[in-house]
Amino acid sequence: MSDTQTLPADRPLRAGFHGFASRLIVGTGKYDTFERMAAALDASGCDVVTVAVRRERLVNEAGASLLDHLDLGRYTVLPNTAGCFDADDAVRVARLGRELLDQLDHPGKDWVKLEVLSDKKTLLPDPVGTLRATEQLVADGFAVLVYTSDDPVMANRLKAAGAAAVMPAGSPIGSGQGVLNRNAIAIILEMLKDGDPGYPVIVDAGVGCASDVAVAMELGADGVLLNTAIAHAADPVRMARAMRDATAAGRNSYLAGRIPRRLYATASSPWDGVISYVPGE
Amino acid sequence: MSDTQTLPADRPLRAGFHGFASRLIVGTGKYDTFERMAAALDASGCDVVTVAVRRERLVNEAGASLLDHLDLGRYTVLPNTAGCFDADDAVRVARLGRELLDQLDHPGKDWVKLEVLSDKKTLLPDPVGTLRATEQLVADGFAVLVYTSDDPVMANRLKAAGAAAVMPAGSPIGSGQGVLNRNAIAIILEMLKDGDPGYPVIVDAGVGCASDVAVAMELGADGVLLNTAIAHAADPVRMARAMRDATAAGRNSYLAGRIPRRLYATASSPWDGVISYVPGE
Amino acid sequence: MSDTQTLPADRPLRAGFHGFASRLIVGTGKYDTFERMAAALDASGCDVVTVAVRRERLVNEAGASLLDHLDLGRYTVLPNTAGCFDADDAVRVARLGRELLDQLDHPGKDWVKLEVLSDKKTLLPDPVGTLRATEQLVADGFAVLVYTSDDPVMANRLKAAGAAAVMPAGSPIGSGQGVLNRNAIAIILEMLKDGDPGYPVIVDAGVGCASDVAVAMELGADGVLLNTAIAHAADPVRMARAMRDATAAGRNSYLAGRIPRRLYATASSPWDGVISYVPGE
Amino acid sequence: MSDTQTLPADRPLRAGFHGFASRLIVGTGKYDTFERMAAALDASGCDVVTVAVRRERLVNEAGASLLDHLDLGRYTVLPNTAGCFDADDAVRVARLGRELLDQLDHPGKDWVKLEVLSDKKTLLPDPVGTLRATEQLVADGFAVLVYTSDDPVMANRLKAAGAAAVMPAGSPIGSGQGVLNRNAIAIILEMLKDGDPGYPVIVDAGVGCASDVAVAMELGADGVLLNTAIAHAADPVRMARAMRDATAAGRNSYLAGRIPRRLYATASSPWDGVISYVPGE
Repeated sequence: MSDTQTLPADRPLRAGFHGFASRLIVGTGKYDTFERMAAALDASGCDVVTVAVRRERLVNEAGASLLDHLDLGRYTVLPNTAGCFDADDAVRVARLGRELLDQLDHPGKDWVKLEVLSDKKTLLPDPVGTLRATEQLVADGFAVLVYTSDDPVMANRLKAAGAAAVMPAGSPIGSGQGVLNRNAIAIILEMLKDGDPGYPVIVDAGVGCASDVAVAMELGADGVLLNTAIAHAADPVRMARAMRDATAAGRNSYLAGRIPRRLYATASSPWDGVISYVPGE
Repeated sequence: MSDTQTLPADRPLRAGFHGFASRLIVGTGKYDTFERMAAALDASGCDVVTVAVRRERLVNEAGASLLDHLDLGRYTVLPNTAGCFDADDAVRVARLGRELLDQLDHPGKDWVKLEVLSDKKTLLPDPVGTLRATEQLVADGFAVLVYTSDDPVMANRLKAAGAAAVMPAGSPIGSGQGVLNRNAIAIILEMLKDGDPGYPVIVDAGVGCASDVAVAMELGADGVLLNTAIAHAADPVRMARAMRDATAAGRNSYLAGRIPRRLYATASSPWDGVISYVPGE
Repeated sequence: MSDTQTLPADRPLRAGFHGFASRLIVGTGKYDTFERMAAALDASGCDVVTVAVRRERLVNEAGASLLDHLDLGRYTVLPNTAGCFDADDAVRVARLGRELLDQLDHPGKDWVKLEVLSDKKTLLPDPVGTLRATEQLVADGFAVLVYTSDDPVMANRLKAAGAAAVMPAGSPIGSGQGVLNRNAIAIILEMLKDGDPGYPVIVDAGVGCASDVAVAMELGADGVLLNTAIAHAADPVRMARAMRDATAAGRNSYLAGRIPRRLYATASSPWDGVISYVPGE
Repeated sequence: MSDTQTLPADRPLRAGFHGFASRLIVGTGKYDTFERMAAALDASGCDVVTVAVRRERLVNEAGASLLDHLDLGRYTVLPNTAGCFDADDAVRVARLGRELLDQLDHPGKDWVKLEVLSDKKTLLPDPVGTLRATEQLVADGFAVLVYTSDDPVMANRLKAAGAAAVMPAGSPIGSGQGVLNRNAIAIILEMLKDGDPGYPVIVDAGVGCASDVAVAMELGADGVLLNTAIAHAADPVRMARAMRDATAAGRNSYLAGRIPRRLYATASSPWDGVISYVPGE
């Protein structure tokens, strides 16, 4: 792959107060060793890693901390409120994350990925608690990136409540089902970007493989966040690389303007203006 | 994307007498200018380009030939029999292609992508003519890469007739529908690779966007061949880049071993052996 | 179709204070004439028709009212709050509907199909307003059948708020897309029927054709509500008949216990205990 | 379901020398008892039952024959060549079936459902053997209803060879996957009915549940043939009833002219000419 072609640069992913070259955000949970986590993050090409505040200071039997295994100069940490099942708890955890990152003078101190979950079984977001916590954290000055279902009206209400980015689920966390409802994501994109094309919509949760990421990006999402698909693949590092390339592929496929879908191509008008045409090329 | 990670190298794509690093084969038809074609081929990262023999010597008003615009040291030309609607015509065109490439002492002289089409409207392959032409070209010493439908039994008969690779259609040529029947491609892969895992199966035709390529590769295809999806995208060069990355992404996603699909993830057994677990990470 | 077979009877559809033989609920809007509406309702085999309260007393130039064209002895009217874009308006309209049906001494006076819509363009439900109106109408003594998105957590919250039935959308009203996210409907059914198998879940909105209805019923939904798919079909009366049969077909297909999906059937174990087996039967 | 509406009658299903009210053809294999088979056939409302010639004279331990359990006055038997793996064997079996039905003076003597299978594992049709056997049986004067893949060109070649009906597989026999490639079935219908709208195309194989049948009929197929989906359902008689209703539903849904699919409905033009419109009805 020794191509020499250079494409005009894409605009960065903007979310909160930050801008990033990579449109893939990667989680840090569920790995078997810190070494494998670090290698997978590296292979993913990500600029942002999300860390559950609840676990951040946990140490294993050898006394190792998660943050010891992250290059905090390379990655911007996006603290998240995983493990929170009501708004109050999520707000408290978000504040704790800010405090910890502030002590480290890390740029991730000013944002949070908000999760208010309904139950431990499905891990689906609770819309009522999510909306309330968003309002509180916005009032607190956070840039709130908020995990929600693919319900367009709820997504729009979260934007209206001041969320810095909305993160609809493609499918349930860890389900590996990809984007189950492309129609819903398309409506979210239309609604939230109406008159505000730069507003970030990041598909979060449910991704299982590279094509799932490409599908999300081809719909016009600004980015994708995933964790289990890499961490629990048979070969996490190779899957991380796949996800890096799928993010770029999906983004460029979206920007490049795809051909229409048809029952079959006809040999008529589409070939006007081409150098030559041979049926079946 | 400044990652430093190096993955263990994949085996090359083997087809006919050749081996290639890239698993993406790209067509040369339907471009508006030779310059755009050359730029797209470059961006695609391909090692093999397929050229319709019927058009190869065509010159435009300025006297330019297609081959003048291909770096024949960089790319291996795979001559194809596009535009042939019966076996005899396809055999004659294949021999003409061999002759032309032999005069150029080009390594592409020993293989051919066989197309025997049924009609100009659907451009679907004719199974009867395709099988007969395959038998003749194999007897002629060609490495025959044969375009066919996604019918597994026909694919298996073509392999039995001596085809060097079988190239099932994801959907009709130029339709942009991607892989319409994943079940059929999966059975083809199971049948043709049974006891012969290195036998090449390359998805040819129907691809519309990057995720379509990733899907084909994730099914376990050895490669993908496409033309219209790049040549007729609004921005062919950017789409070529998308296809390059999607091929790599799909291949690595296949090799990496994806997580299973589930209605929803449960917080139970999958988390055994992980450093830590927070619900909703 | 002169079959003589009688199946054990299915339990009735229970919703609110009522029970019905038919599991198909049909709307009354969007018809070109009252006569066609009446014929379509008849052909649909429905027991319940839903009527927008906002329109119920409207008369056309000839002075005809919608209710004049409904056999109020045959059909139970389910008043709905279509056209309401906030909770207060929906509550007021629901009360008005109760009053009107009470004056007619019609059994439909004690229930309501609640719609609180977000906007006139997408007609998607507003979750916040929907939840609030549900709480108020339940407090008012209504049996509330509530239209909502396919977000399982929101559906569960509406049940917890006292809704007599939850009516998730298969896809946006009038879109004709059918059930876009089978996974979401399956989780709703699992959640809402957990320990309460008789709790009614009725798929409402988005249905375009007969197979869409069958899919919804095969997932285990208790019923389907639709309007546009019949009223705007080229032949509404025939489509109504199709929907009647599709509802029965989908219900029986669910109850009968379908065969599993497999890449292909194998000739091995499934044939134990059959009278005889010939491959390919 | 006490509707009084009568629809204009549909034209009968024509195939071979026959015409039938029901568009569902049902197999007779894989049942656990003859009684259940008879009850399921009855509930299915079918007019035609297909019987494997190879098994027709088999008797169980009690000396019972399959034909003893079929009402030969009610059903037209369509003999099939299940269990044949080459053209010669299929031709021989077809002739044997004709002889047996001729002795019974049964109208099914003049037609055959041709299956030439590739292997016992996938039960997929062999295109080469199928085409050859079709030619021979047509020359023998049979009305040949021929099982084939969903490859449109092969389907068209079989029609050209004189087949009385073409029966493309929705998916592999017994797989329960339904119609995997709607695009392919649509092209088959377009090709084979071009200038010959009455030519019968019957989807055969792969059906798992009622919605699968409805989908096939909505595509415009003339009928559906199935066996395993009923015989191996948990409750075959109820599933047979579901399939009867799904066939009628799908047929009427096709004839009635469905609404278009849209991202969402808009409140604008579609409502011209309606009695009244309330958003969200």
